[in-house]
Amino acid sequence: MSWNFKEICIVGLGLIGGSFALNLKHKGYSGKITAVDINPKAVEEGLKLGVIDSGSTNYSIAKSADLIVLAVPVGVYRQVLDQLKPYISKGTVVSDLGSVKGHLVYMCEEFLKGLAPFVGGHPIAGTEKSGVENAVKNLFDGAKFIVTPTENTDKKALEKIVSLWKSLGSQVVEMDPFYHDQVFAAVSHLPHLVAYSIVDAIAKLSEDLKTNLFQFTGGGFKDFTRIAMSDPVMWRDICIENKENLLKVLKAFKDSIEKAENLIRNSNKEELKVFFENSKEKRSSVK
Amino acid sequence: MSWNFKEICIVGLGLIGGSFALNLKHKGYSGKITAVDINPKAVEEGLKLGVIDSGSTNYSIAKSADLIVLAVPVGVYRQVLDQLKPYISKGTVVSDLGSVKGHLVYMCEEFLKGLAPFVGGHPIAGTEKSGVENAVKNLFDGAKFIVTPTENTDKKALEKIVSLWKSLGSQVVEMDPFYHDQVFAAVSHLPHLVAYSIVDAIAKLSEDLKTNLFQFTGGGFKDFTRIAMSDPVMWRDICIENKENLLKVLKAFKDSIEKAENLIRNSNKEELKVFFENSKEKRSSVK
Repeated sequence: MSWNFKEICIVGLGLIGGSFALNLKHKGYSGKITAVDINPKAVEEGLKLGVIDSGSTNYSIAKSADLIVLAVPVGVYRQVLDQLKPYISKGTVVSDLGSVKGHLVYMCEEFLKGLAPFVGGHPIAGTEKSGVENAVKNLFDGAKFIVTPTENTDKKALEKIVSLWKSLGSQVVEMDPFYHDQVFAAVSHLPHLVAYSIVDAIAKLSEDLKTNLFQFTGGGFKDFTRIAMSDPVMWRDICIENKENLLKVLKAFKDSIEKAENLIRNSNKEELKVFFENSKEKRSSVK
Repeated sequence: MSWNFKEICIVGLGLIGGSFALNLKHKGYSGKITAVDINPKAVEEGLKLGVIDSGSTNYSIAKSADLIVLAVPVGVYRQVLDQLKPYISKGTVVSDLGSVKGHLVYMCEEFLKGLAPFVGGHPIAGTEKSGVENAVKNLFDGAKFIVTPTENTDKKALEKIVSLWKSLGSQVVEMDPFYHDQVFAAVSHLPHLVAYSIVDAIAKLSEDLKTNLFQFTGGGFKDFTRIAMSDPVMWRDICIENKENLLKVLKAFKDSIEKAENLIRNSNKEELKVFFENSKEKRSSVK
């Protein structure tokens, strides 16, 4: 299997960046893996765990890479690119692992124009944990990887990125960057926002009832709110960068809640049953 | 270990009733276990799985029991009691496993007055599956069991029920029936309603985007919406029987959503981070 890249530099060594490194090694990538992170502890941990071969808090480490992968919160892409720019060698492919694409892909392309080809990507995998120390083996194996080329995307760079993710076991799906943001606003960003919000509501209700309601939660609640333990900065950035789509799907969600609420208020037993049955059927179809 | 009851009749042999039978057998209960279910297939399945010793679609099977346990949807309690009444021997303890207590406990007490003592109960355990064929071993082991005595509750009957659930490995917690409904409206009924609603919203958004959005869901979404596969009739009944509390906690939830929505709309990065951080911290405290 040809990996196409001799040295991969991961910018931001958190759970996703760390898992990317770990999975490269596990799938037999034999090139060099380096990482830059502003937090020296992340770099130290990555070296200790052996997921990277070399690491630094200084962006200059990216200089010798032929692939640079951004794995930082989407809110700092521009700042990070500013810092990285002096160390991006001409022709080096730049890619990312961010959950928002649309305008960010075009920003990266514009920023790197004439210097390096950019290929936007988003692995549909993760956990509610944070940090390289929680990197997961085979995280991307069997998972979807969304690649979001534009009319400007360098075809060769795109092919190389697609091939790399296939080598990691991912199912690569091509999608328009703006369409991507509509889709993931619904199936990922909305659920996270709702999970954080329901925990907020139960904390508030705990105060009202003068008891810690969380002590009475069962397994269903725990599964339901697991994603509320996800990294706050990462999700804050996602919500703000994909604001327009998120507010739209939030509107749809509030409509659904209102529909259910009215059925309950009116004790409409038949229609409420149908509402629940339809959702059960849809959810059960998810493999 | 004394089990206090020689013959237990379970009314409604679904996931919870079936698990109750299975767990009794697993914990060494040596008395007889019978069941009545209007669905002959449930009875047949229960006998085949060996979780019950005898079963029928006729309520008369309850006649010889010294404990009758209602494990039917809370919306049919009154009808079921009407059918059962001729077969409740004087002094037989009647209990239940329903998720709504408040007015239902008082209704059962009033209905059974002078005939049999009633003890309301609610095991904080379950799965999103339905049916006796999905009964779970050790479902109640280590789980909370909420017992909801009133000023009318027979002390001896209460002690017997508490002792039985302790024998099943549950941690028994005593709670006022109306307080119970406030607590579980927040930590259980609200999350279920929200899960059904978010699936409804994503189904609607799938139509708008002319794509099956569910194909792009990851592990987080699956955990988040697992409870939307729960039994529609059971949850329809819970939502309607606990309507007043559910509408109140729904209001608190909508306030939390609105708070988050405004922070996103205004790109209030600092406060949105704090909002997510607080929820993460609260959720992380749940053991």
